[in-house]
Formats: sequence, C-alpha cells, structure tokens
Amino acid sequence: MHKLIVQKYGGTSVANPDRIKKVAERIVSYKRKGFDLVVVVSALGDTTDELLELAAQVNDEPSEREMDMLLSTGEQISVALLAMAIHKLGVEAISFTGAQVGIITDSRHTKARIMRINSDRILEQLKRGKVVIVAGFQGVTLNQDITTLGRGGSDLTAVALAKTLDAKMCEIYTDVEGIFTTDPRLERKARKIPRLSYDEMLEMASLGAQVMQARSIELAKKFNVPMHVRSSFNMKKGTLISKEAEMLESVLIRAVTLNKSEAKITICNVPDRPGVAAKIFKEIARGGINVDMIVQNVSHTRQTDISFTVPKSDLSKAINLTRKMAKRIGAGDVLKDQDIARISIVGVGMKSHTGVAAKMFEALADEGINIEMISTSEISISCIIKKRLAKKAVKTLHEKFGLGK
Amino acid sequence: MHKLIVQKYGGTSVANPDRIKKVAERIVSYKRKGFDLVVVVSALGDTTDELLELAAQVNDEPSEREMDMLLSTGEQISVALLAMAIHKLGVEAISFTGAQVGIITDSRHTKARIMRINSDRILEQLKRGKVVIVAGFQGVTLNQDITTLGRGGSDLTAVALAKTLDAKMCEIYTDVEGIFTTDPRLERKARKIPRLSYDEMLEMASLGAQVMQARSIELAKKFNVPMHVRSSFNMKKGTLISKEAEMLESVLIRAVTLNKSEAKITICNVPDRPGVAAKIFKEIARGGINVDMIVQNVSHTRQTDISFTVPKSDLSKAINLTRKMAKRIGAGDVLKDQDIARISIVGVGMKSHTGVAAKMFEALADEGINIEMISTSEISISCIIKKRLAKKAVKTLHEKFGLGK
Repeated sequence: MHKLIVQKYGGTSVANPDRIKKVAERIVSYKRKGFDLVVVVSALGDTTDELLELAAQVNDEPSEREMDMLLSTGEQISVALLAMAIHKLGVEAISFTGAQVGIITDSRHTKARIMRINSDRILEQLKRGKVVIVAGFQGVTLNQDITTLGRGGSDLTAVALAKTLDAKMCEIYTDVEGIFTTDPRLERKARKIPRLSYDEMLEMASLGAQVMQARSIELAKKFNVPMHVRSSFNMKKGTLISKEAEMLESVLIRAVTLNKSEAKITICNVPDRPGVAAKIFKEIARGGINVDMIVQNVSHTRQTDISFTVPKSDLSKAINLTRKMAKRIGAGDVLKDQDIARISIVGVGMKSHTGVAAKMFEALADEGINIEMISTSEISISCIIKKRLAKKAVKTLHEKFGLGK
Repeated sequence: MHKLIVQKYGGTSVANPDRIKKVAERIVSYKRKGFDLVVVVSALGDTTDELLELAAQVNDEPSEREMDMLLSTGEQISVALLAMAIHKLGVEAISFTGAQVGIITDSRHTKARIMRINSDRILEQLKRGKVVIVAGFQGVTLNQDITTLGRGGSDLTAVALAKTLDAKMCEIYTDVEGIFTTDPRLERKARKIPRLSYDEMLEMASLGAQVMQARSIELAKKFNVPMHVRSSFNMKKGTLISKEAEMLESVLIRAVTLNKSEAKITICNVPDRPGVAAKIFKEIARGGINVDMIVQNVSHTRQTDISFTVPKSDLSKAINLTRKMAKRIGAGDVLKDQDIARISIVGVGMKSHTGVAAKMFEALADEGINIEMISTSEISISCIIKKRLAKKAVKTLHEKFGLGK
C-alpha cells in the first residue's frame, strides 16, 4: 500500500501526556496529508522500570510468563492514551494489543519471536479511514498467552508490520535526530548520517550505537523494508536506512563507534590442540553468555593465549565457567580486565579500499594509544584499547577519517 | 466442585507489594488445606485513579472503548504480581486476563454485561494443581475488544466464576470485617452481622451500605451462590450471604443504613392527569440518570407535588431536565435540596411483623427529627431527613431496634 506508513514512537516520545499530545499532532498532520497510518508505541517513559520494581518486590526470580503478563500492560496503556489524544484532534483512531491484531509468536517468554501477523483486523480498520495504533514489544502465542519480544521489541513490531502490510516506509521516532558519525556527547563535531545501508547499520548496532537493536534491522534487511530513524521532537529528516544499491554516494567510512559495556577475559597457555577452543566456547554458550570478540594468537610453541570479550553483566559467571574449563583442558591462568573499550570504524566503502586498517592503527599509535585486540569484519574494524583513552581515540579517528566535514 | 473456592481480593487488599505477599500467604494456606482455588483480583489501590488522571490529561471525553483498553491494565498488573508472589511461596499459580479465560461480554464498553464464560482453560489449570488467578472487572467481546464491567465489576467476575465452576463458596475479601448493623464510624456499638439473606444484602446495598454492589448480589441470588464477605487483614469469619431458608435465626431488623449521596428534587403543582409522572421520569431516564425514591402525595386539588431523589453527581443535569419538563406539562416551581440523608432499616423479619414502621417514625419523632419523605419495600423502610441529623438518627434507630446487643 503506497499511501501507508508505519510509525514507531519510543518510550521517551510518549513519556507523559504532553508528549503524547505532540505525537498525536504529528500523526494527524500525516493523516491530513493523505497517508494511511499504522502506529506502533512503546510503554510510557518509566513505566517498564516501575513494573520491574514492583515485580522485584514480590519475587526476586519472577516467572517469565508472568513477567510478560505484567510488562505488556505498559504498551497497552500507551496505545489507549494515544488513541484518546488523536480522537481529541477530531481524527478517528483505534488501539490494539499485540494479541488483538494477531501478532503470533513462539512461546519463548520475554524473548519471543514473531511467527506471523494476521493483518485482517488492521486492514479492515485502515479501510474505514482510522489510524491504527498497535502496542509494540508484545505478541501472543497460539495458546493465547501474552509474550514480549525482548529488547528493541517495539522496533521489531514496527518492521514486521511494515513488511506484512507492504508499507512505503517504516519511521522510527526516537529522542535523537538520527544516526551520527559518532556519539555527539564524545565529539562535538559528530554529524548526522543521511543514508546508511542495512549492513552498516547492523554493524554499528552490534558495535555499540544504541539507537537501534540489531534484530529489527536484520528483519528490515531480510524483507527490504526502508527505515527512517528520526526525532519525534522536530520535523527534521533523520537517517534513511535502505539497501546498499540505493546509496547515492560512496563513502569510505561512515562512523566511529564505541562500546564500553564489555570486559576482556584471557586464558593463558592453552594447549594448542584441535577442538580446545570449541570446548571452551560451547561451555560458555551453555551458560547463556554472548561472547563477542575472540582473538587467538598464532601459536609458535605448543601453547597459545585466547582472549575474548563478554558483556560486563555476565563477567563473573563467564569467569567461573572459564576457570572450570581452563582446569579441565590443562590451560594456565584466567585473567580479566574490565577497564577496556572497543572502538570501531564502520563503512561499506572499506570493502573496496585497502589501507583502511593501517590508517586506523597508525592514527591510534600517533596518539600513544596501545591496541590490545583487533577484530575485523567486511565492513568494520574494531580495536580493544584502555577505557580511559576511549574519548581521545574517538576524536582522533573521527578527525582522521574526515567524518566531521 | 466441592473442593473449589473462588476468592476475590479488592484493591485495598492488594494495594502494594507487601499486601500482595500477605494475600499470597493466605491463598497458599488454603491450597495446603486441600482446596482448589480460583482467585479474582482488582487493580492495585490507586492504579485506576492514576490511569483515569492520565486519560483526563489527553482527552476530557475519552472514548469508552479506549477507556476499557486503558483501565483493564490495572487488573492485569495485579494478577501477574500475585502469581509471582505465590510462586515465591513454592506453589504453582497462573494468571489470566478476562479475555484469556473467555469471559465473554456484550460490547457496552465501561459497563459490559457477562454473556458467558468458557471455563475450559481454568478447569485445565485447576486439574494440573495450579492456583488460577483471574483479572477481575474485565471481559472481552466476541470481536476481541476488551471491555470492563463497571462499578463492583470484580465482585461480579467472582460470582460469575463461582457459578460457572460450581464453587462451594465465593469469598469476597475487603478492608472491613463483614457487613455491620450500621456504619461503625457513626455508631461505636455497631456489630458484625453473621448471616444475611440475598434480599437483605441487596436492600442494604441499594440503601447505602457500600461494601457490596447490588449487581453481584443479584447474580449470586439468581444462581444461589453462597458468599462470604470478610477481611483480608485477619482470619476472622465475616458475613455469610445465602438464601433465606438457610437462616438459622429470625431477626426482625438487621441493620440501619445511611445514604448521604443523594439530593431531593421537588416539582410543585403538577397537574394531576394520567401520564404526567411517566413523561417526567421517562425524560430523566433518557438523560441516563437513576432516580431513586419517588413520592407523590395524594391529590385533593387538581394539582400535586412530586418529590424524588437522584445521585448528587447528576443533580444539575436532572434539574435542567426537570425544569424543561415542568414547563412543558404546566407544573410550577422546581426545588432542590442537597442537605438530605436517607436513613433506612432493613430486615426480612419485618415482613411478618406489624408496627415496625410506626416504631421507626416514633423513635425519630422522639428525637425531634422531622421526616420529609417515606418509602417502603417489603424488607426495608426509608426516611429522608435533614443531613445534619443523620448521625443522631442512626444511633437512635440502632438502639431502638436492639442492634447493638
């Protein structure tokens, strides 16, 4: 439907009644321009935290099914209030829970995956000229149990609806104006990026840019849903995310990202035998811990060091598992380091250019910043450095790759 | 199922996490005694008011469908938290929304009526040994729209479930210990009534006893569901409400009730023609106003005065409608009086005793309390008196009919 736009408003965009009214005004202005609108809303600002706090007071390990029952009320409140605010402006609107519009998921509570969407009810209401408002972040199992989709779930709802309804655009409204060349809080010269490919956005999301979660971008990429990440506080254009072929300009490096939420674990003197690394990481995966970078040095002796990073929140659990495994495989000490940062450069352009890595390493070296680990993908290069040097590193690379211009 | 009890906990019983934990303990103690339990819960203490306030800030006349969407989240939060609190005590429990257990209603939003309940899901979970927790006050239309049942809706949910599941008892937990011979705040000597018939309870509810709403008692009476109204703050027995035949003792008068929430309207010099009264009250009913007492004096001339009472909240609307009608039918002035109270005595015993009314009027006269209107039913007598004399009247009648003993 080429008059159809899916808009998603995050928690800060609907933090209180005044902001909800502003969002209603924006929606009505689009409606009056002739667009059909499906609007996905997150829970009001602090609602989710308040609900989590209530749960923590009655049970420190609440059942995931009941957590979903509890948390899904947050979005239900938002959609009802937004519908009321739109009505007040004289425009017809109707709100739905995830269950009511048939967002069918599997039964993995708190991190469910969307299986399909029955769009009949939405299409029926669009046909009647109504703005359709859908609770983000939630779905329902075939057994009618309420589920939630995990972090970034509302974005996922929006992209899935845009795909199912064949929308012209999926607009993601947030509290920043788009995706920036680096975090503007670290570098004043950071600029908004007008266009990004899905792959670049994915890489940036996984490397620490917190505006978007990887899951929804993956879905958008899979079904080629164009996304527009923009601010709900003004009318400026934000960042358009679409497939690479549509990029007008070819830029070498898009952005510098920084991630300070990980810690490094090093296992010393690992026997250099086939299958040893597999054993270690299988055990850590079993503990439900996501390992990020893994670096193993080429071995000249019969022993090697293996370093990897994990989210800080999982560090103590990961350390315990690693120590257990180190003993079992006959490795040496297990060391940890929390004072690290991962700094990365991202850009599809680097695929066809040589010397990008060298330029990065040189820039860091010139500032006296030591590199502890290096990891590369097709469109990114990451270095682990000391955390206290992170800001300096961001400024240096932002300058060196000409992102401030 | 004669091991099955339906328990309903009101908003003050689950006002905060500590109280929710207390309620969980009580439920678990019943479960451990071998009972099957279906628990109906209201919204946490102030939740409903907070949601109403949010709605008022975005729209002063919110759509009723969206209000139901909004308000139903209150009970959804309660059931999830209560399930978590029960889990913490090592007992299996599962929460459901009204929609999930198939409480099917008509589509009269904010005051829907229960059409039927599909009890399959509840029975399945009871069979598995789980405590089943159901959100009160809410249902769902055949079209999957969420509805709410209006005031006293959670009691209604409890009674309807008790009937559908053929429960042994429907326990209504509240913040008072049962039904009293009169309001203990007005008369220290007020005593808890151990047993009441449905009819007496109905009469008391309609006459101002605020513990129970008439709707749920009507339903309990219709299907002969025994109810036990008691406190969630202690283990004392409360008031058992069942059919008259089961009453052990025959008491003349059960209680003195007081209602100060009404105002009196008098239409003077109404032409005494057939159909005049019908016209007036039809018009007021069309305005959605519940008229309570109506008194028309016998007419000696060709004109009469008609007085009636309405809820104070509807007074200005009722006055406007009445003035319009008075003009149309050629009646005289329309007067209003907000400084009134209705004092009533209730008891099935009075059916078979003469002189009860005379005793009431005499008692009031002895205290110098003037009676402005009188209305009688089979099991109650009500008088409208000046509001400032209400407390004195309560004490006098409570004493005169021996209720304090």
